[in-house]
Amino acid sequence: MESAEDKLIANFFRPLATHPGALSLTDDAAFFTPPDGHDLILTTDAIVGGIHVLADELPDMIARKALRVNLSDLAAKGAKPAVFLMSIALPRNLGEGWLSSFCRGLKEDSEAYHCQLAGGDTDRVPGPLMVTIFALGTLPRGSMVKRHGAQPGDHILVTGTIGDAALGLQLRRAPGLAERWKIDASERDHLLSRYRLPQPRVAFAETIRTYASAAIDVSDGFAGDLSKLLRVSGVTAQVALEAVPLSDAARKALAADHTLRETIYGGGDDYEIILTVPPARLESVLAVGKLAHVAIRDVGRVSKGHQPPRFLDSSGTAVTFSHSSFSHF
Amino acid sequence: MESAEDKLIANFFRPLATHPGALSLTDDAAFFTPPDGHDLILTTDAIVGGIHVLADELPDMIARKALRVNLSDLAAKGAKPAVFLMSIALPRNLGEGWLSSFCRGLKEDSEAYHCQLAGGDTDRVPGPLMVTIFALGTLPRGSMVKRHGAQPGDHILVTGTIGDAALGLQLRRAPGLAERWKIDASERDHLLSRYRLPQPRVAFAETIRTYASAAIDVSDGFAGDLSKLLRVSGVTAQVALEAVPLSDAARKALAADHTLRETIYGGGDDYEIILTVPPARLESVLAVGKLAHVAIRDVGRVSKGHQPPRFLDSSGTAVTFSHSSFSHF
Repeated sequence: MESAEDKLIANFFRPLATHPGALSLTDDAAFFTPPDGHDLILTTDAIVGGIHVLADELPDMIARKALRVNLSDLAAKGAKPAVFLMSIALPRNLGEGWLSSFCRGLKEDSEAYHCQLAGGDTDRVPGPLMVTIFALGTLPRGSMVKRHGAQPGDHILVTGTIGDAALGLQLRRAPGLAERWKIDASERDHLLSRYRLPQPRVAFAETIRTYASAAIDVSDGFAGDLSKLLRVSGVTAQVALEAVPLSDAARKALAADHTLRETIYGGGDDYEIILTVPPARLESVLAVGKLAHVAIRDVGRVSKGHQPPRFLDSSGTAVTFSHSSFSHF
Repeated sequence: MESAEDKLIANFFRPLATHPGALSLTDDAAFFTPPDGHDLILTTDAIVGGIHVLADELPDMIARKALRVNLSDLAAKGAKPAVFLMSIALPRNLGEGWLSSFCRGLKEDSEAYHCQLAGGDTDRVPGPLMVTIFALGTLPRGSMVKRHGAQPGDHILVTGTIGDAALGLQLRRAPGLAERWKIDASERDHLLSRYRLPQPRVAFAETIRTYASAAIDVSDGFAGDLSKLLRVSGVTAQVALEAVPLSDAARKALAADHTLRETIYGGGDDYEIILTVPPARLESVLAVGKLAHVAIRDVGRVSKGHQPPRFLDSSGTAVTFSHSSFSHF
């Protein structure tokens, strides 16, 4: 009596659906009881095989990345993850071994980030793999940190390091670049893993919510995403590229090949956070970051004006990025 | 500075995002303030071109169907639509004309059903069109109508008519069948439109919530979906197929070709509701249905037992459905 889809749900996805509102995935929909006095934060991001992940990526890594890019959006808004729904379009050649690995990765991350599967939809398709996740987070009513909100005088802060993932993607496609970039094996692995597996700043969400005037997660490239935040806030900024935090690996690569500037500052998939913070709160944010072992760098100040931000190189020359916002589109 | 995706969002999707929490689609995520004392009902369903809709279907019809199949899930659970997010994977050959028509259909339905676009994600893909909608509804806390909950003695009610959409799909593929089924042009159009454009029972949601012990929307076929509801409720039933409501068109087609029984009772895409109702509430539901001009038919009674339901034909013979649950999988 059970269809192939029912069996697949029972065998692979039901073990992940431990939230009571998921009703063990035996219903048309899930329920979620929001905490009193809280807003919900809603986001969706899809991962397409061959576009957002390489076509031969390991299934558990695909699952983790699909969930994590959504958790990154929630973190940037200051929200705590709650539940997610997943719609998965499976090419017909992906069998039980693939699904088993995919679900293992998804379960581990779902547990690690306290975000449970509440429902979903499954289809077999002739096209590429597509994993669409819809994540729901919560925060005290009215406390969402928006892209809109940066004020002249605010400091522009960046978590972690920028550019690693875009370099990692280049390395994945052309492993020989490691030699040209004069990076060692561990630096190469660092860049590759930054591309393959985002580290969403979930643990930093409460700090963002407490201190930031505006924030955005860096998914489409540092220069483009900062530009978006400033534009919707109706302000501008001047940023010294030297102040933007780079890993040792990225720094070496850039020293070996100056044309990588475009990739590093304009590429995507960083899943770090750009946040703006009023001067009076700067010390507090930096102190919290230190306690939480989150590297935070002050890269510039917001100023009045509607023009795009200016990015200056070490000689003070303005740099423009031809693809200032990376797009898979 | 704006990417192709940004432009597409601004030109086509932003006009639909009138909910304040959508932040005009200029942010990483949307916010939603749930009404006090309410639960959220969460569902997702994807529409794949060539699978759930014919590859050459009109874009506005695809948009409407994508939203409506999700609204049908909310209605079956007794929830009122609130907002939706949409992830759309666009084949590269679909241009602005297509998108314009798609968004027109989506906007009209979004307004008609009071369910606004709150966010989304857009990608260009080499594969088929895929429209994944995540819909969020609300209802008073703890009042979700589940599949689980049918009790022995409950009446099994069905809204509208069953089988039209599955017949409509056959007609779409083989227009010559209309003659064989001895149906006239208006009956043919009725079946075709039932396939192309579901009529989700949104207006009936409050009645379901008030009176039903359990409910399911009929998306995978009447026989299969009723079986699912009974199975998770731990009960069984006996259903006289003659009692199941058919349209004039379906009745004629079945009279002309008895093998269509499988298609009618086992096919999918009805988007009607099966609900179970305790005897004491039966008259009230039927009265409300009458007032609301929703046809409701009593097709059988729930009974004790864990075996699958028995479907009886007019001679009292048990009928089995080889594909008792239709699956696109």
